Amino acid sequence: MKAIIVEHKQPEQANGLTLTELPAPIPAEGELLVKVRAAAVNRTDIVTREGQSGYAVNPVLGVEIAGVVEQADGNSGFAPGDRVMGLVNGGGYAEYAVMPAERAMKIPDAYSFAEAAAVPEVFLTAYQTLYWIGRLQPHESVLIHAGASGVGTAAIQLAKTLSRAQVIVTAGSEEKLDFCRNLGADVGINYKTQSFEQEVLQATDGQGVDLILDFVGADYWDKNLASIKKEGRWVLIGILGGVQVEQVNLFALMSKCVQLTGTLLTPRSDAYKARLTADFVSEVFPRIERGEIKPIVDTVFPLEQAIEAQRHMEENRNIGKIILQVGKED
Amino acid sequence: MKAIIVEHKQPEQANGLTLTELPAPIPAEGELLVKVRAAAVNRTDIVTREGQSGYAVNPVLGVEIAGVVEQADGNSGFAPGDRVMGLVNGGGYAEYAVMPAERAMKIPDAYSFAEAAAVPEVFLTAYQTLYWIGRLQPHESVLIHAGASGVGTAAIQLAKTLSRAQVIVTAGSEEKLDFCRNLGADVGINYKTQSFEQEVLQATDGQGVDLILDFVGADYWDKNLASIKKEGRWVLIGILGGVQVEQVNLFALMSKCVQLTGTLLTPRSDAYKARLTADFVSEVFPRIERGEIKPIVDTVFPLEQAIEAQRHMEENRNIGKIILQVGKED
Repeated sequence: MKAIIVEHKQPEQANGLTLTELPAPIPAEGELLVKVRAAAVNRTDIVTREGQSGYAVNPVLGVEIAGVVEQADGNSGFAPGDRVMGLVNGGGYAEYAVMPAERAMKIPDAYSFAEAAAVPEVFLTAYQTLYWIGRLQPHESVLIHAGASGVGTAAIQLAKTLSRAQVIVTAGSEEKLDFCRNLGADVGINYKTQSFEQEVLQATDGQGVDLILDFVGADYWDKNLASIKKEGRWVLIGILGGVQVEQVNLFALMSKCVQLTGTLLTPRSDAYKARLTADFVSEVFPRIERGEIKPIVDTVFPLEQAIEAQRHMEENRNIGKIILQVGKED
Repeated sequence: MKAIIVEHKQPEQANGLTLTELPAPIPAEGELLVKVRAAAVNRTDIVTREGQSGYAVNPVLGVEIAGVVEQADGNSGFAPGDRVMGLVNGGGYAEYAVMPAERAMKIPDAYSFAEAAAVPEVFLTAYQTLYWIGRLQPHESVLIHAGASGVGTAAIQLAKTLSRAQVIVTAGSEEKLDFCRNLGADVGINYKTQSFEQEVLQATDGQGVDLILDFVGADYWDKNLASIKKEGRWVLIGILGGVQVEQVNLFALMSKCVQLTGTLLTPRSDAYKARLTADFVSEVFPRIERGEIKPIVDTVFPLEQAIEAQRHMEENRNIGKIILQVGKED
């Protein structure tokens, strides 16, 4: 089968991606073999390409797919021909991939494979960070950085639909902010022209937000601390703005009684991902099937153009998800 | 009444304490007037003396007392003559103090006032950090820094008695470590002669601990991160080792999925303290009354020697609580 692996270049050059020919993976017990029709691009793939993740074991990139079941155990709940989407332990940028059956989700009939591939990682991450980690309560306020990103667009929809939360987003252009407002965001802040912590305090009567979904990290450290309510929760899920914070004042965390949780979804255990998927399906799927929540696809690239797809993400040009189409169109 | 207030010295000198004469406080609705028999010394008092807490409004120091009810509302559940202990919003270092009735606890018959004054702040803090914030589960492992401190000695007992946890403590002398072991600690680490993160990993099969109670802060940042289990909880509750961390690597928090919560008890709301007290009384009081859990009194100073009592704490000479006796002995 065709598959995309990392092309290790000379030390002074950035690694690239290579389309290669590999044997199709063999499903272990409890796994489905899936003919991949679409895979989505995630920042974790870029980190892996750069050789920095430290946890990727599968040489083939890609952590989520949508496709058709090719082979399934009798007691898996799935049968050949079923359209499924879900997280995989690497191996998504390929014609075939294996997926633990307990984290496979049936694709809603109305969805194309590209739309389906845009669901798992960002919606599961948004659900996990807003609810499992962030414990968002009805009508609370949440600050979502990178509001037009894949996880951002998913989080806006979940926070509005499930919790009627006050949703405040940051993004770097008016186009992105308009998109977020159309998805339901109450307040859009252009981080290039506005001071977001001042806008957040103004939008929350000087209290700050109950919850922050932070994809930015170091650059926003002090501003996030200024934007969070006393006893607020702060979920650190990305480091677009740098990994190293200089001079962290611990008393500020203590006197505001802040809870800061670092998280990544990809390195979590199989059991965790299965529980998260099951909870997501039970809480959110009815709303997905009713069309109240929808995946946001930015661009579809053919599998062969995986490096161009990653560059599109690295340049922050996308609103929503970047998809790799595998094989012929839907 | 006699009371201890902060004596503001010249800018270049450390503030001192002054014994002064003030009118007794007048209880508001829902408050008890208590004749103070013992007050305990806490680090928050020292921070307030230094003018750095930013939240103390009562000019009289002291956040916990034991004494006798002098005046009570009919529907408060208390009557004049009752022996009570509990948290106060400042005003503890004095002959009379007011205490919200909903956070007053009846003193067990077997306890002296000095023992009773050694209960509220450290046991409520240990209970709050281990259970409300740290969510300690049965048989989990917990690393307690400053194991011989007031909160440390309370936390060792609670973690062993309520959760049969694996308790690992650090302290700076063999005498303190022996004391901790006698209270139930499984592993004692002398931070002056041992590398605590290596000892923690050895005691936990290389996994690290589920929970850290951290009173140290900056100096232990990297070592705590090395000592915590994946998905572990880290409760930051003191800054004995400095407030400023020079460099924080956020990816380390993310890849280990660490939850870090800063907390202080004193600036929490009245409602929070009342709920915490009620939960503590229901979960822990039966064990206190059966003698399974006991307050640890280090030294009793007369009220007039409040500054000497604070210095004793600043020099880390105590094992357990430092008490101020108000009026004549029990």
